[in-house]
Amino acid sequence: VDALKKAAETCAAYPDPYCTALRDGIASVERVPAQTILCGNGAAELIYAFAYALPKEKTALIVSPTFCEYETALCAAGIEADHYVLKQSDGFRVTEELLQTDLTRYGAVFLCSPNNPTGITVDCGIIHRLLQTGVCVLLDLTFLDLTETPDKYVIPRLISAYPNLTVLRAFTKSYAMAGVRLGYVLCGDEAFLQRMSEKTQCWNVSSLAQAAGAAALGCGEWLAASVKTISSERERLMSELQRLGIFVFPGEANYLLLYSEKDLYGDMLERGILLRDCSNYVGLGKGFVRIAVRSHAENDALLAALREALR
Amino acid sequence: VDALKKAAETCAAYPDPYCTALRDGIASVERVPAQTILCGNGAAELIYAFAYALPKEKTALIVSPTFCEYETALCAAGIEADHYVLKQSDGFRVTEELLQTDLTRYGAVFLCSPNNPTGITVDCGIIHRLLQTGVCVLLDLTFLDLTETPDKYVIPRLISAYPNLTVLRAFTKSYAMAGVRLGYVLCGDEAFLQRMSEKTQCWNVSSLAQAAGAAALGCGEWLAASVKTISSERERLMSELQRLGIFVFPGEANYLLLYSEKDLYGDMLERGILLRDCSNYVGLGKGFVRIAVRSHAENDALLAALREALR
Repeated sequence: VDALKKAAETCAAYPDPYCTALRDGIASVERVPAQTILCGNGAAELIYAFAYALPKEKTALIVSPTFCEYETALCAAGIEADHYVLKQSDGFRVTEELLQTDLTRYGAVFLCSPNNPTGITVDCGIIHRLLQTGVCVLLDLTFLDLTETPDKYVIPRLISAYPNLTVLRAFTKSYAMAGVRLGYVLCGDEAFLQRMSEKTQCWNVSSLAQAAGAAALGCGEWLAASVKTISSERERLMSELQRLGIFVFPGEANYLLLYSEKDLYGDMLERGILLRDCSNYVGLGKGFVRIAVRSHAENDALLAALREALR
Repeated sequence: VDALKKAAETCAAYPDPYCTALRDGIASVERVPAQTILCGNGAAELIYAFAYALPKEKTALIVSPTFCEYETALCAAGIEADHYVLKQSDGFRVTEELLQTDLTRYGAVFLCSPNNPTGITVDCGIIHRLLQTGVCVLLDLTFLDLTETPDKYVIPRLISAYPNLTVLRAFTKSYAMAGVRLGYVLCGDEAFLQRMSEKTQCWNVSSLAQAAGAAALGCGEWLAASVKTISSERERLMSELQRLGIFVFPGEANYLLLYSEKDLYGDMLERGILLRDCSNYVGLGKGFVRIAVRSHAENDALLAALREALR
């Protein structure tokens, strides 16, 4: 917030189109060369830039249920989308079965870890084998920093080994700055990164976002404390929700996917609490809702309301 | 700046994807319905959104010399661009000749008034007749507020009469907030506006930009004072530059296009002043440079440096 206020003073000048200082900061935290980094106006803009940079004539594969913006962006880019639907019987985990798909048909695979809305992470070995097929992959790790295993994947090694990989990261979630809009991708294929960059205007990251991002990179301790709070609150929510007879998927992020035959969405809305109704996700259906892991007091309020509704 | 600082305090929340308050404010200043307004992450993003929303199979026509981002955006969208090149002998003014072009061939016409880099505005009658042909037009008025005739075109009437018109406006220039990124378009064709909107992510305007824009709309007096300063400084620069034997195009904006057989760009660079070399604009060439109309002291410094170089 201090960095934003300071940047506000000099907002008459155009932002640096290359985000030089911010990219240098990210490079040092991620331990990758700065030229493998492209910043965007939130991770969402980069999903669109990625879609626009893909070959139009090839279908893309979305590993579902997942974040709906992948399909929206592909649709904007005029690219057809197929869904590889994860099985509820596998707990919506990505299994070896994905690798048995004929991936040569696809221009890209969209994979999210931890996945939204399930919170389930993808096994590291599966990601390696997926990338070894040569298929272009967008690996959305925007929530990974909020799990207890932020180093689950060795990103510098992945980036240098697989030019077909684009990793998506966001400041939005990790540093509580969704209103500012700031995300970035990491990719070892500089020509592809250049192509993505050309799909958006050159002043896409505001000078305020650049300043806030650079400042946030110095807040590693704050992030670590956040993750600790989120983890303990998530575990508490899980056990309390299970006690209420709600099925909770073992998510690792700052949200949880729930299933209940009761109308939790409607019941909570009546009590002034908005859950994310997930019935319209490809691969989900009626009864699925996502909740956020919030502060202790807010989580208590949610649990109290659910207890009342399910009494 | 105060609005930005206030918005910084609540930056953890996502921005309003519909920019409701900001659009209501713009609607009231522009005297148009809010549903004819789409906001973007700077005018530049909206140029891209416009290009992406056009039919791919039709060529677009750019009235040149002009802002190079139109062609860059069309290229990103995979749309071919033709140039209608204005004549230096007409002082780079748009004449009736443009209307004699076979416009049915084109998916859109890009027209800028005051034009960048010439500063020349387009006659109102020509714009009406251009729109009457039915061709889709992007009319870039991002610098119009900085001329002495900000009401040269009756925008509410144009918007309601011609659904084929998209007017581009920016906060960047008028309110000295280029670092914040905020622009908008006005269009009477709601389906086209929706199509443009779908070409970008839904959280494209940060909550800081929305707050700054809403605050800027209340700064009409500041803008009027700016225009007064710009006008008197522009006139002063024009007569002084002409006295130095430099050809000055009679621009109406906060910049001027100059022509000289001397290497003004190189001479000024040596003296620590960066002019915009315009030799690479379609329709211009060696010897053309653009200068900004800046503060009295900065303009004096430029004039002194030019006098020294041309002595």
